[in-house]
Amino acid sequence: MSYVAPLKDMLFVMNELAGLSAVNALPGCEDATPETVEAVLEENAKFTSEVIAPLNWAGDQAPSYWKEGSVFTTKGFKEAFKMYGEAGWQGVQHPTDFGGQGLPKLVATPCIEMLNSANLSFALCPLLTDGAIEALLTAGSDAQKAIYLENLITGKWTGTMNLTEPQAGSDLAMVRTRAVPQGDGTYKVFGTKIFITYGEHDMAENIVHLVLARTPDAPEGVKGISLFIVPKFMVNADGTLGARNDAHCVSIEHKLGIKASPTAVLQFGDNGGAIGTLVGEENRGLEYMFIMMNAARFAVGMQGVAVAERAYQKAVSYAKDRVQSRDLAGSAGPVTIIHHPDVRRMLMSMRAQTEGARALAYVAAAASDAAHHHADEATRKANQACYEYLVPIVKGWSTEMSLDVTSTGVQVHGGMGFIEETGAAQHYRDAKILTIYEGTTAIQANDLVGRKTARDGGATAKALIAQVRKTEAELAAVQSADLAAIQRQLAAGSQALEDVVTYVAANFKADIKGVFSGSVPYLKLAGIVLGGWQMARAALIAQQKLQAGDGDAKFYQAKIATARFFADHILSAASGIRTSIVEGSAGVMAIPEDQF
Amino acid sequence: MSYVAPLKDMLFVMNELAGLSAVNALPGCEDATPETVEAVLEENAKFTSEVIAPLNWAGDQAPSYWKEGSVFTTKGFKEAFKMYGEAGWQGVQHPTDFGGQGLPKLVATPCIEMLNSANLSFALCPLLTDGAIEALLTAGSDAQKAIYLENLITGKWTGTMNLTEPQAGSDLAMVRTRAVPQGDGTYKVFGTKIFITYGEHDMAENIVHLVLARTPDAPEGVKGISLFIVPKFMVNADGTLGARNDAHCVSIEHKLGIKASPTAVLQFGDNGGAIGTLVGEENRGLEYMFIMMNAARFAVGMQGVAVAERAYQKAVSYAKDRVQSRDLAGSAGPVTIIHHPDVRRMLMSMRAQTEGARALAYVAAAASDAAHHHADEATRKANQACYEYLVPIVKGWSTEMSLDVTSTGVQVHGGMGFIEETGAAQHYRDAKILTIYEGTTAIQANDLVGRKTARDGGATAKALIAQVRKTEAELAAVQSADLAAIQRQLAAGSQALEDVVTYVAANFKADIKGVFSGSVPYLKLAGIVLGGWQMARAALIAQQKLQAGDGDAKFYQAKIATARFFADHILSAASGIRTSIVEGSAGVMAIPEDQF
Repeated sequence: MSYVAPLKDMLFVMNELAGLSAVNALPGCEDATPETVEAVLEENAKFTSEVIAPLNWAGDQAPSYWKEGSVFTTKGFKEAFKMYGEAGWQGVQHPTDFGGQGLPKLVATPCIEMLNSANLSFALCPLLTDGAIEALLTAGSDAQKAIYLENLITGKWTGTMNLTEPQAGSDLAMVRTRAVPQGDGTYKVFGTKIFITYGEHDMAENIVHLVLARTPDAPEGVKGISLFIVPKFMVNADGTLGARNDAHCVSIEHKLGIKASPTAVLQFGDNGGAIGTLVGEENRGLEYMFIMMNAARFAVGMQGVAVAERAYQKAVSYAKDRVQSRDLAGSAGPVTIIHHPDVRRMLMSMRAQTEGARALAYVAAAASDAAHHHADEATRKANQACYEYLVPIVKGWSTEMSLDVTSTGVQVHGGMGFIEETGAAQHYRDAKILTIYEGTTAIQANDLVGRKTARDGGATAKALIAQVRKTEAELAAVQSADLAAIQRQLAAGSQALEDVVTYVAANFKADIKGVFSGSVPYLKLAGIVLGGWQMARAALIAQQKLQAGDGDAKFYQAKIATARFFADHILSAASGIRTSIVEGSAGVMAIPEDQF
Repeated sequence: MSYVAPLKDMLFVMNELAGLSAVNALPGCEDATPETVEAVLEENAKFTSEVIAPLNWAGDQAPSYWKEGSVFTTKGFKEAFKMYGEAGWQGVQHPTDFGGQGLPKLVATPCIEMLNSANLSFALCPLLTDGAIEALLTAGSDAQKAIYLENLITGKWTGTMNLTEPQAGSDLAMVRTRAVPQGDGTYKVFGTKIFITYGEHDMAENIVHLVLARTPDAPEGVKGISLFIVPKFMVNADGTLGARNDAHCVSIEHKLGIKASPTAVLQFGDNGGAIGTLVGEENRGLEYMFIMMNAARFAVGMQGVAVAERAYQKAVSYAKDRVQSRDLAGSAGPVTIIHHPDVRRMLMSMRAQTEGARALAYVAAAASDAAHHHADEATRKANQACYEYLVPIVKGWSTEMSLDVTSTGVQVHGGMGFIEETGAAQHYRDAKILTIYEGTTAIQANDLVGRKTARDGGATAKALIAQVRKTEAELAAVQSADLAAIQRQLAAGSQALEDVVTYVAANFKADIKGVFSGSVPYLKLAGIVLGGWQMARAALIAQQKLQAGDGDAKFYQAKIATARFFADHILSAASGIRTSIVEGSAGVMAIPEDQF
């Protein structure tokens, strides 16, 4: 059940692919020196593997439970969260002004990965708290910042996102929760919110609910939604906790996975009204919530990478231990199953997809840092566009990939994989939520198609494809059978992606249902091509290091082999996916509803 | 939670694709008239949907449990199994001589599908019993047949397969259970067997364990394994039950899915020795067990189809009910989610794959019938070769497909899918065992590569591909955009499959690890091409019916649209898979073990 943080691969990706030194050179990122970053990562690895990872199986076996309005988390969670906050981990990427460490997103990202690999259920509490912090930093008043931020950033309090209602899931236009102004600057909030992660728990002194609701005269639809802070306990002027607010947990869900993470039904205002304060301006709530959501979507993408890494480590460990059947090439007796080609193929598939998704996410994090901190406005804008294009891909592709990887992880274990005590099945169950919450894969794909591709006529996508082609040219310039194979598949992939981007931009208005019929395949295609691009870049760098005789040769050889596997086994699907998008819309909508 | 048997599709496949009338014309299959078959299917549909399906969720919530050596199944299972036996369902495909109905495999197959759609956990007991019946019919002595067969076929007793031991999973060479001759024709059996489905339960008066064990002087490896009957209760000469045998259930497993199906650890001989009788000859046990296994492998393939069908029905029902967001083409208010293109794409993907796998399995069943009953020996042989080629594909592809379909089923439900009470997650959990038991997908793929392809130089595979090409020619002769698209993808698919068969046959000896690196991708490729072939055949027939104005036009239009979807979205992956096999072995084995 152990977890060993893949620090070597993380640092390789940060240094060689995501450009840590360039991030360190950005104004405001001076603290992120190579030495500091390495020290932070090592400390985080130690903490997550020693303190958090051992609670993962316990949380599955003895999940959080509800009793008379309170939620009791798994034994050990409360103490671990206290340590987490005290060690400063909640504050890694948040401003020093409010008690954070002020480090770039590129440095926070591996920390998020490690925490999630260690324990997906535990990590959700910090994840949602990060989102609340982002929203308050961007849209909160000075008074709100003063009351809430430091307590959230130091892990004393935690945050939640209250969007979903029974009739309003993906469709937030249907939100019905009401917020009635009281004339004193506060509002009374009434309504029911469901699927609220860590909506109630015993790990912190206070819970800061960020709640979408409608004021009495608000317009219908998404343009009439405002965002409110509704704390579990009111906060007095001196910062001490006041009365219990009228926001109560009436039940938690019985779920397939992430069982230790309480998923609450919250009832606001059943006893007179829950007191809330408006964040920013009325009717701009969705906009502010998107700040949280974009941060959370990226983080959920990292959850995909994280659970895939954990499942991979577990499968490798079993494959090196389990003895079964002779080696195909001949052996005296039975061998460990890692010798068998199909087991090796499964492990390589897990490894290659995990590494590709990690690299793409870290590259996106670096783009976010440049978008925030770069001195040049045009560079900031270009990086912002790149980051925004990548967020739905990081979220959608990494999580879809994690379903495949955790499923393969069970398969490597054979019959033992199906036995819960083995632990492989937990990752399979846990991962299943990742393609659903913070916007399903279809919602990510809608974002990719509409806001991120059609809106600029495919310009951002094509700028990325142009960069992929540069890498193809570099690959072609090297004499290597592996790099030539990678180049071939990457070229086919980038062509497929370009065809699709052109198709999406050209047909978005004339054939909207046809274009959206291919939205999720487009997202997956973008994932494998851009993830494959990172693998190709890694192979190029590894080749250079090997030629220069610089560093750990086995590590670099493995990088090339993994990139080759990715190209032949994952990226090779690109042209088939292109077909399903560009030629495949006819069959999607053809059958009338009554024939289903 | 309801299940409606897809009788219309089943009968279409039986009549139009699998050739029920040709099967009915075989010697010994005269009873399988269209009227009889339709009546049997309707009765089975009624029984499985009304009696068995309602127990599915109950079995997940209140699984079988172990207490002091006994296993108590879910409330209602015992009564349902009694009804199942009394109605004659266990005997559908077994000889009338021993109380069966003597119907062809093609007729038994939809019955197996319906039972498994209704309740995967329940269906495992009849499934294993079928296997035991097959083995005794083929290899049992007249005395053994007289004692056991009628009781098994009428559902009074049940059967088990005892292969696996802690150190012997896929590798049966490592079986250690001992069988010591007692000089009176009986043996005493000693050992531990694990993962024994319905190895202990309270649904029948007796349990007939078929057990692999070694006699004292047996050679090592798989050539020293014999097969024994070890009943739970000894059977007296007059057929009444005698003493309790020394075969005891010491525990059952806590599993990810199929929780109502008890998975037993059986201890043989801890109190002096379990009395067994030899089946057939010593040291030929594996051969006899393969009779059971081949029957069981085909049936597990049907489990894949069955759980996919159930998940599909559930997803359709939710998609027609759940209201969320406006129609992309414009609507006054929000619409049911079946109007949204990506939901439709998911439903079509579930539907197309399920229909393709069903059709391929039924066609295989008809080949098995011809292999057993055809008057002409050459035709029997050709059909046997075809059936044997298809069994690992039906098992491997249908079950891998079911993982994808049940996962998509959860996704269609959004957040509700992750809540256990919704029920979609049960299918996802249940399906996960299907790619593992009765031989993992890798074991099926080894069989496909070694015994079914390399051994005859690819002749059987190429004979099938030649038939696919005939269908391509028929498609090309019709004026239809849909059929033209199907033809294009099928032609690309059959070419990819032929390339791979040629590669496997040519490189099997020289590069065995390379060939086996692509074994599972080859199996999946064969599945989508041969399943896609059936879909294409269905589209051709539907087109003819439409032109002739014969029958339900909407049904036939839907057949064509589903085949088109299969071609564009599933079959279109063929050339990418070909690449991963023919060009992709380099990356699979390249990394040394210490780099994992």
